[in-house]
Amino acid sequence: MDVLVSAAAFDQFGEHLAAAAPGARFLLAAEDGVRDRDGEAVLDGEPTVVWFSSDLFAGGRGVAWFRSAFIDSPRLAWVHSSTAGLDSPLFTQLLARGVRVSSAHIYAVPLAEYVLRAALDHFQRADQWRAAEADRAWRPHECAEMAGSTWLVVGLGNIGRRITQVATALGANVLGADRIEPSDASIHEFVAANELLGHLSRCDVVVLARPAAPDEPPLVDTRFLAAMRPGSLLVNVARGSLVDESALVAAVDRGTPGRAVLDVMAHEPLPDDSPLWAHPAITITPHSAGQGLGRYRRGAEVFEQNLRAFLAGCPIHGEAAAPAGTS
Amino acid sequence: MDVLVSAAAFDQFGEHLAAAAPGARFLLAAEDGVRDRDGEAVLDGEPTVVWFSSDLFAGGRGVAWFRSAFIDSPRLAWVHSSTAGLDSPLFTQLLARGVRVSSAHIYAVPLAEYVLRAALDHFQRADQWRAAEADRAWRPHECAEMAGSTWLVVGLGNIGRRITQVATALGANVLGADRIEPSDASIHEFVAANELLGHLSRCDVVVLARPAAPDEPPLVDTRFLAAMRPGSLLVNVARGSLVDESALVAAVDRGTPGRAVLDVMAHEPLPDDSPLWAHPAITITPHSAGQGLGRYRRGAEVFEQNLRAFLAGCPIHGEAAAPAGTS
Repeated sequence: MDVLVSAAAFDQFGEHLAAAAPGARFLLAAEDGVRDRDGEAVLDGEPTVVWFSSDLFAGGRGVAWFRSAFIDSPRLAWVHSSTAGLDSPLFTQLLARGVRVSSAHIYAVPLAEYVLRAALDHFQRADQWRAAEADRAWRPHECAEMAGSTWLVVGLGNIGRRITQVATALGANVLGADRIEPSDASIHEFVAANELLGHLSRCDVVVLARPAAPDEPPLVDTRFLAAMRPGSLLVNVARGSLVDESALVAAVDRGTPGRAVLDVMAHEPLPDDSPLWAHPAITITPHSAGQGLGRYRRGAEVFEQNLRAFLAGCPIHGEAAAPAGTS
Repeated sequence: MDVLVSAAAFDQFGEHLAAAAPGARFLLAAEDGVRDRDGEAVLDGEPTVVWFSSDLFAGGRGVAWFRSAFIDSPRLAWVHSSTAGLDSPLFTQLLARGVRVSSAHIYAVPLAEYVLRAALDHFQRADQWRAAEADRAWRPHECAEMAGSTWLVVGLGNIGRRITQVATALGANVLGADRIEPSDASIHEFVAANELLGHLSRCDVVVLARPAAPDEPPLVDTRFLAAMRPGSLLVNVARGSLVDESALVAAVDRGTPGRAVLDVMAHEPLPDDSPLWAHPAITITPHSAGQGLGRYRRGAEVFEQNLRAFLAGCPIHGEAAAPAGTS
């Protein structure tokens, strides 16, 4: 059985992976080709298992060479991805072909820390401290507190649940929205996905943490924005297509919400002429909120566990449901 | 019995206070004099109880007029302060006179949120995101994570304990230092105050959260700084005198620690010519980390409870120990 992994990931975690699958042949892919563990070029590879590790996505590099190393394999049975979303066209195609697809959810920790920093920066108006320091001016101000604030987290998957955990631990009152109420979310109140609008006016922070379906109209549109609380904070760490960016600019100009922090945008990299760049009430980061250094280790740990489970015929953690009509 | 409070605090919380002490005469102090609840000037006040509420300290205003309204009272028995520290000369003098002094610790919540923001900003190198946004440049970078980081919190009073709670909730490994190990701190390891130096090299974050004795030499001196971890973060939310600022500038110039975030300084407001202002690895805020808006309500709640306890002859929460030789 051939297991395809990136050469970089195997360098770091290969020993554990080899121990998890002692009978497998590991194919190590790099931009200049596929080799075996002895460094010999492999031309007859037919991967059964593929691990899309985080290093393949670091720095926004393309992964066409990695994809070409497995996409035509007649034995392809399972692709494990260390990305958060299974909503990419590649995975949709694989699922339609009957290939099993799973995802490791290793981004929940850094994404929750990013959201927390964004919210604390907003509550504390830290930009005013930074401006005062640049002016060498001693200008104290009072701060809002996260303890006692009200949050709405839209999407209660692994990422959303981690966000609700940290917000709750800091004393926030946390509403969580999804299609189905999960049993293990740290929320004070569950909101059905189709009843969001009625709850927005009491929320100091609204966090988007759910996938977007292809061609879905933006969840955060003019009506959504108008229903938010004046001065509140919108944070998007999910998908850029969830937000109507023109409507957002108009809304923050009116102060409702008071600020938006976006790690994802409809078009990435954000075009030079986007009004989002310089807007004083909109903060942009370059789709890197999830790039926490712990993700490599977490990703390898989950893949190793899943590899053992796959070989033993046991359930795979984080497996996507097969589309209707296949099985 | 006369109870002296600020007129501003009585405006907001007087109803609750009057209910807690129905037999008392409330004296409402403002800069232009002391009045009773009917607005009549009071010239014969002899306060038994005094509440130093947070509004008296907001915006760095002086409180000489408030102090003069009670300091000569022959009946003075108890002063409750809504500040964190009982190390001011006024409270030392009161204790020496046999007056009971207590403190409400209402700053723990905003101070812990400030420390958390400072640490997340450091781990995520958010300054690089802000610089990239100002340049309209899409420059992703990887981030350190707070989960799995190692912290040392020096001082495990109410403020330090709140900091250990939130750091632990986010997955940090937390060392706590004090003279005596408290029973209820969220720490993984206790460090005796005289054994700090040996633990500094493994700490990603060191937080100062303990009072400073008058004329005490700085805890954070050249030796302390040299023992810290390269690239680590020092946060001071306690007293400026805990840090030797010249030694700090020299140390961050060498990258050990990598950054210092100071809400308190040896001289406040920070003099115009201080090298701290413009140092790229030192962040200054104007002694306002504790100025969370929730402190007014929390302060009133604690004073009201303590007022009931005082009248009933029960223990007062947050009471300072009387100095040796008095009782």
